[in-house]
Amino acid sequence: MLYEMFLTELSSRPSRNGGSVIPVVKKGDLGFAGFGELYFSVVPKGIAKGWIKHTLMTLNLTVISGKLELICIDDRTNSPTYKETVCFIMTDEKLARLTVPSGVWIAFKCIGNKDGVLMNCADITHDPSESIRKDLEDWPTQGLQA
Amino acid sequence: MLYEMFLTELSSRPSRNGGSVIPVVKKGDLGFAGFGELYFSVVPKGIAKGWIKHTLMTLNLTVISGKLELICIDDRTNSPTYKETVCFIMTDEKLARLTVPSGVWIAFKCIGNKDGVLMNCADITHDPSESIRKDLEDWPTQGLQA
Repeated sequence: MLYEMFLTELSSRPSRNGGSVIPVVKKGDLGFAGFGELYFSVVPKGIAKGWIKHTLMTLNLTVISGKLELICIDDRTNSPTYKETVCFIMTDEKLARLTVPSGVWIAFKCIGNKDGVLMNCADITHDPSESIRKDLEDWPTQGLQA
Repeated sequence: MLYEMFLTELSSRPSRNGGSVIPVVKKGDLGFAGFGELYFSVVPKGIAKGWIKHTLMTLNLTVISGKLELICIDDRTNSPTYKETVCFIMTDEKLARLTVPSGVWIAFKCIGNKDGVLMNCADITHDPSESIRKDLEDWPTQGLQA
């Protein structure tokens, strides 16, 4: 059982003939909770999405294009970080993987100058009944820790 | 056991608040043989890589940035397409997933005007002992079916 939301910076190794290889997530990694589905969310420039809270899914998020701001609010009453808010900036220029356990509200906004693409390597397949949504009235960065 | 190399076009569905969701691969999909590791290969503009033949890994490849040409040569003596060559053009402008079973030689070249990024959702984790390499003398498109 994972309690933390955490960011893992992705590192690359050079490959023969030029170029590089960048491992994103593998079996056994901290934060990997199994594989159900891999999908992309396209987030148009300036657009914010949220809130969504998954009740079962563990998310492993990577921004593969553009720049996104992600806000996570821990809503697990039994968590040591209950009600805490964390803000992450993720970009394709510095690849990283954000692990978000179930029970955490998330919202994200495309803050770059092109459309953003957020990839999720999720431990379960899509099931609308396991997520809860709330309207995002305003983008809530104001007053949050960055 | 998979015999075919095949391309699956990825389709998107609109998501609320704008943008879209693009499923790439999920448990149960034809071509999905399990999950071991997800990684990116960065292929600089004009650079070709290959040949590589995996003896165990089933690859599920998606070009997430740029444009690549991929060539597959079936090297499975028990396959109905033994020695056949297939050429695929893959681009981030028309997302697709290419399933390549083990026992097939592959080579790929970045033919776009920016660096290419090829994502592999592989059924096993990286293990150099399960792949065989051969030098790529020249880019072999000449004379191949497109």
